[in-house]
Amino acid sequence: MIELTFLGTSSMVPTKERNQSALFMSYETHGILVDCGEGTQRQLKHANISLTRINKILITHWHSDHVLGLPGLIQSLAASEYGKTLEIYGPKNTKKQFEHLFQAFVFDRQIDLKITEIDEGMFFENKEFGLHAYPLKHGIETFGYVFQEKDKRRIILSKVKTKGIPEGPLLGKLQEGKNITYKGKKVLAKDVTRVIKGKKIGIISDTLPCNNCNKIAKDADLLVCESTYSSKLKEKSEKYNHMTAKDAALIANNAGAKKLVLTHFSARYKSVLELSDDAEDYFPNAVCAFDLMKIKV
Amino acid sequence: MIELTFLGTSSMVPTKERNQSALFMSYETHGILVDCGEGTQRQLKHANISLTRINKILITHWHSDHVLGLPGLIQSLAASEYGKTLEIYGPKNTKKQFEHLFQAFVFDRQIDLKITEIDEGMFFENKEFGLHAYPLKHGIETFGYVFQEKDKRRIILSKVKTKGIPEGPLLGKLQEGKNITYKGKKVLAKDVTRVIKGKKIGIISDTLPCNNCNKIAKDADLLVCESTYSSKLKEKSEKYNHMTAKDAALIANNAGAKKLVLTHFSARYKSVLELSDDAEDYFPNAVCAFDLMKIKV
Repeated sequence: MIELTFLGTSSMVPTKERNQSALFMSYETHGILVDCGEGTQRQLKHANISLTRINKILITHWHSDHVLGLPGLIQSLAASEYGKTLEIYGPKNTKKQFEHLFQAFVFDRQIDLKITEIDEGMFFENKEFGLHAYPLKHGIETFGYVFQEKDKRRIILSKVKTKGIPEGPLLGKLQEGKNITYKGKKVLAKDVTRVIKGKKIGIISDTLPCNNCNKIAKDADLLVCESTYSSKLKEKSEKYNHMTAKDAALIANNAGAKKLVLTHFSARYKSVLELSDDAEDYFPNAVCAFDLMKIKV
Repeated sequence: MIELTFLGTSSMVPTKERNQSALFMSYETHGILVDCGEGTQRQLKHANISLTRINKILITHWHSDHVLGLPGLIQSLAASEYGKTLEIYGPKNTKKQFEHLFQAFVFDRQIDLKITEIDEGMFFENKEFGLHAYPLKHGIETFGYVFQEKDKRRIILSKVKTKGIPEGPLLGKLQEGKNITYKGKKVLAKDVTRVIKGKKIGIISDTLPCNNCNKIAKDADLLVCESTYSSKLKEKSEKYNHMTAKDAALIANNAGAKKLVLTHFSARYKSVLELSDDAEDYFPNAVCAFDLMKIKV
């Protein structure tokens, strides 16, 4: 199960109710933070998430409202019993930006950082999931991200019982999708197991609508998408390289996404009703995120 | 009247209840921010203080918990109708640190900044008040600050009426402290005016107890003083170049300060009762600050 916690849902300027961008995804022992706006470490406390659960940070781009919380978070990790290597993934220049960061502030202690400047495509993979980056259109180099869980094969217990296959290495082979021979008879994995499709979560950060948005959204179980403005301010959204709620809904609709969560709202929207209405006309299963909102996928 | 708003009262690591260091002082049209920990711009919103009221920022030192909110605050000022020059005062290297800041983050727009690297002594003066810096002992260059309001002379209306002096330039001269001649008779300013003593506010940021603490505290109407620990952790406070609540109270007591506000508490203190008790044994008029607390002097 993947759990998402929205730590900040405002664009550029924070409001009383909304912090700047950050999203925490937890999956088994993995804690993935996508962006880290100013105040993110305190939002984690409000969400009762220990800072030390983070092992990966994905940076979408280096506009300040998405990264100003990085030095404080790293400083606080250094003051805790972190003991892990913090993996940071981001656009070109991420290493250089971090050098400036560490010169700009006086850090007493450090933690192990592994900074990777990524390109389009898969940049992390383990047995359970892969992480993919898609370049977006936002004036400076910006990535959208996909968390793709791998398919899992599960034994259908009633079927292996009928065939009398005992617990042990044979079941292990079936679970790996391999066929076996039991008491002289061939047993096909496909007959006694079923495949549970891995979940896909797409994250579209600051961008104009573009073809990679569709790729990120394609068949996603959950699409998280910026919608800085409502379509009443379409011109402004284009001027500042952003999307409207309608743009996000059209992408979710065309790509066959199952659920859409809008975020990254301009501070002008005291109520986001205008934004959810704007989206629901084109994609009914849309909600506006609020700070500390949790979603399980 | 001087109004202080405590925007952040935690040391190093923020808690759910306490943000990192920042203190806003407002005096007539002046808005002086002392330090700017991460999240300060949002704390200003919570305190209903417009960011654009700030015209001076005093940096005590460059440890990250005192300065991480600077880039976000400046970015948000740039996105507003600021139109003023933001004066920034701080220790040596402040200009260099800002250069790194602006390289570390992508800023779309800028405002006029006037950065002054200060030394011991008065670094700002106008008709109404002066600002003074005192080097402290904290491992890196650190300043404590004094806001010293100037004495004001007020006409005693009953006395000038008795003498029949009409409104106009003669009263203006008396108010400036000059003696006048009216209808052939000499009138001494000291006889028909009274002097209202200017208020002194002393701010002792991170430091070990030192002689300059006494100078900052001397006869202060209000002394704001770090007290990271209680005296039960005296050794730790010395190790990390900090003070205990008792240290702060002794300084306030010896220097004849009128009121003491403790701040900059270690995150270990869920309740600050231990700290206020520690101080009150040595200086009864002591309180522990909390986030968004206001005090008028």
